Amino acid sequence: METRENRIIDITELALRDAHQSLVATRMGIDDLVGACSELDEAGYWSIECWGGATYDACIRYLNEDPWERLRTFRKLMPKTPLQMLLRGQNLLGYRHYQDEVVERFCMKSAENGVTVFRIFDALNDLRNIETSVRAVRKAGAHAQGTISYTVSPIHTVELFVDQARRLQDMGVDSICIKDMAAIIKPQAAYDLVKGIRDACGQSLRLHLHVHATTGVTMVSLMKAVEAGVDCVDTAISSMSLGPGHNPTESFIEMLDGTGYGTRVDMERILRVKAHFAKVFKRYKEFQSQVTGAETEIFKSQIPGGMLSNMESQLRQQGAGDRLMDVLDEIPVVRKDTGYVPLVTPSSQIVGTQAVLNVLMGRYKVLTGEFSDLMLGYYGAVPGEKNRELVKLAQEHARKDEITCRPADLLKPEWEKLRSEALPLAGCNGTDEDVLTYAMFPQVAPKFFAKRHEGPFNLGTDPVTGVSETHPPEGHQGVVTGPITYAVTLSGIQHKVTVAPFDPSAT
Amino acid sequence: METRENRIIDITELALRDAHQSLVATRMGIDDLVGACSELDEAGYWSIECWGGATYDACIRYLNEDPWERLRTFRKLMPKTPLQMLLRGQNLLGYRHYQDEVVERFCMKSAENGVTVFRIFDALNDLRNIETSVRAVRKAGAHAQGTISYTVSPIHTVELFVDQARRLQDMGVDSICIKDMAAIIKPQAAYDLVKGIRDACGQSLRLHLHVHATTGVTMVSLMKAVEAGVDCVDTAISSMSLGPGHNPTESFIEMLDGTGYGTRVDMERILRVKAHFAKVFKRYKEFQSQVTGAETEIFKSQIPGGMLSNMESQLRQQGAGDRLMDVLDEIPVVRKDTGYVPLVTPSSQIVGTQAVLNVLMGRYKVLTGEFSDLMLGYYGAVPGEKNRELVKLAQEHARKDEITCRPADLLKPEWEKLRSEALPLAGCNGTDEDVLTYAMFPQVAPKFFAKRHEGPFNLGTDPVTGVSETHPPEGHQGVVTGPITYAVTLSGIQHKVTVAPFDPSAT
Repeated sequence: METRENRIIDITELALRDAHQSLVATRMGIDDLVGACSELDEAGYWSIECWGGATYDACIRYLNEDPWERLRTFRKLMPKTPLQMLLRGQNLLGYRHYQDEVVERFCMKSAENGVTVFRIFDALNDLRNIETSVRAVRKAGAHAQGTISYTVSPIHTVELFVDQARRLQDMGVDSICIKDMAAIIKPQAAYDLVKGIRDACGQSLRLHLHVHATTGVTMVSLMKAVEAGVDCVDTAISSMSLGPGHNPTESFIEMLDGTGYGTRVDMERILRVKAHFAKVFKRYKEFQSQVTGAETEIFKSQIPGGMLSNMESQLRQQGAGDRLMDVLDEIPVVRKDTGYVPLVTPSSQIVGTQAVLNVLMGRYKVLTGEFSDLMLGYYGAVPGEKNRELVKLAQEHARKDEITCRPADLLKPEWEKLRSEALPLAGCNGTDEDVLTYAMFPQVAPKFFAKRHEGPFNLGTDPVTGVSETHPPEGHQGVVTGPITYAVTLSGIQHKVTVAPFDPSAT
Repeated sequence: METRENRIIDITELALRDAHQSLVATRMGIDDLVGACSELDEAGYWSIECWGGATYDACIRYLNEDPWERLRTFRKLMPKTPLQMLLRGQNLLGYRHYQDEVVERFCMKSAENGVTVFRIFDALNDLRNIETSVRAVRKAGAHAQGTISYTVSPIHTVELFVDQARRLQDMGVDSICIKDMAAIIKPQAAYDLVKGIRDACGQSLRLHLHVHATTGVTMVSLMKAVEAGVDCVDTAISSMSLGPGHNPTESFIEMLDGTGYGTRVDMERILRVKAHFAKVFKRYKEFQSQVTGAETEIFKSQIPGGMLSNMESQLRQQGAGDRLMDVLDEIPVVRKDTGYVPLVTPSSQIVGTQAVLNVLMGRYKVLTGEFSDLMLGYYGAVPGEKNRELVKLAQEHARKDEITCRPADLLKPEWEKLRSEALPLAGCNGTDEDVLTYAMFPQVAPKFFAKRHEGPFNLGTDPVTGVSETHPPEGHQGVVTGPITYAVTLSGIQHKVTVAPFDPSAT
């Protein structure tokens, strides 16, 4: 445990998980990651985040890569540094609540395969949704980090978050993380929140801060959090930082120079990590986010950049591309009606889609099933007061009762059923790990099991030629073998362009 | 004059000068700038920087645009807000020292045509090199801002800079700017320096801070400068910010939320400025800097990104592309020998080139003329102690004496001579403004005068088709009119590609 006196700030490196998730849609394949592992492991990070829902999903959906094998590879290549994962509480890495036994088995297996730090969060900040996983992680001898999903609303005062921190401490978490996925924690707010939790929970509770860089202010928020007593911050190596990603690790270290605070991270080593990712990152250009600079509009809408473009496309499909501003104005209304849920997956999608429907069809003329479930408690308890009339409307619409219990309490034991469904699948190797893959991704897992023997794909392409170098997916050979004729319109004039192999000896 | 109590922080907007200079090599044409002027003028900025050496140079060299006409256009479109320029002291906007009468005439004409704030700096921080322009600017009734070129070295203590600030104050400047062109001022250093100057020079002296964003730490430096009592900071609208540019204006404003500090800038208006530049900036893709993220290596070398790539190419031309690290190690040696000059134009080029020669030919086996001049005092006095043996070597090499006087004191009156050379040039309109253009850019001015009547070029191109929309320079028509055959090598295979006009009715 750190004391405040030696003023060392720990760093969690995000390069292997959230950095490429935020910047290139989690598409980085294992062979572009392993080259950095040795330097990462020796660099002196408090932890290296390397596993989570999107990495797991992308592994089996796009990369034909076993996520458990990826985890074991990381563990082998990085024996010294704690490996960290992001866990969506009772949802695990999937999109529904799982019965407790499944949650327990997942945590145990993740710890067995190499995860040492579990960051556990719930989108609604309903702590009942993370209790089981916190208990299971601690039972497995790993580090359970309780998370506060940061949001801004009239009811989200420092006091409310401090109360949540106290309850997490009572639950027995090993540390607390303030998680700001939308980059909306401003410097003063970061200071006040860290100070508030520190004062309430004492010096011995570890406090971490996760921020994104999107709005351009959060490097300052990290500084203020340091001044207020944070123990550890999340950053990403500079060559995979900024935009919708995170603040650069090297800049964070340099920023502390002369302040009395310092880190244990070895700059020489991480500059080699930087060089590695500068090289491989270019290969994922086609997956790159369009957001590259600072976007302060997020403070108003609280809608992360990725979701904004989703909503725009929803609207365009309905021939209502000009209604975006109306939707952005509607979101605060819908959010208030839900009792001010934080806008993170899945609540951001639920609120955003309902706002689109309200604008297009009239307010609450149509309710999505997910919105009804949210209003009726099936995702858990919301932070504030729900609009009671809307709860009634949701009851009528969904023909379900409102619940107030922990949603997972309604679930029957399901492990044996999941196991009996998974095991007969072609290619399933019979392990609990495979059953968990099936449990979390029942649509994708069968296809993945069936072609797993082909080995991992790499979706990176040569940044100059655009050609895939290894394991090209079918239909992407990248080399022209016969004459192809295109109609190319250049500056309003159409051209017929013929591309064909050409014998160099003829020139 | 602000008092500290109302805690308003002023902002200088860089969009029209340093932002596009840093990001797209100063290539933005006037017709891509005017569309933002009305909103900029109403937004509540303390000043709008819009003129300087690189914009002037680019206007006549690349854009066939009269820089004085650009200035008058800005003045007309932005009548409310002070317009600011960057002036290289006795060098004006050129690359040599000018005799005082030329300096005086330039300052007077600039003020007449619309400049209200002159930021005046000298690369060596030799204040004798800015005295004449400060006096002339004040005589013209404009605001003279004295500048400290920020650098880091063993002799550049807070005390040294504070002493410089005091001497600027004694000179009668209207305000002081700390100018950090390489983005190397760290947060604590910014705090200490601003505090030091504030304490020494009193509350009534206006203090401005100019920083770039390159290293990823300077947004925090701005926050610390605010806490230490800075009056005004330089930022750039978000759609033309970050990378080798500056911190985003919107983010700076949002950052202050809740801190007790505020600004007078209207967010609604500048979001429209953002939208304008988001659109036009894309048209200058081909001029865009390769540096887009954070580059902390600058802290060590103090060599700005642009210069690093210059040095790499110098080395490659000599078949010594592998010696870059040696050169970066040599730079501190050379810099020490010069008495720790700040590394800004032109001293950065002089020191960098000499370091390259030292590595390739042996230390000081060959001296450039510019390096000899620097050692012999022809650029002015350096901050520290020069290597005396090297001064002797420079004397032998250049066959010139060392000087200690103000370099411009050696110059004879030259205005009439410049005038008599400029006036006969084809297309010269006979104004003092044209004489000044000729005085500062004697090679480029004649060509510019001759074709000025063709009107401004716009070098922007359609971001999708790559086609120029207005005033295409000769030879860039952008439309294929006859069959053209290319040999295109794709993934190592050469193709013969024929592009020809195609009759749409035939499809």
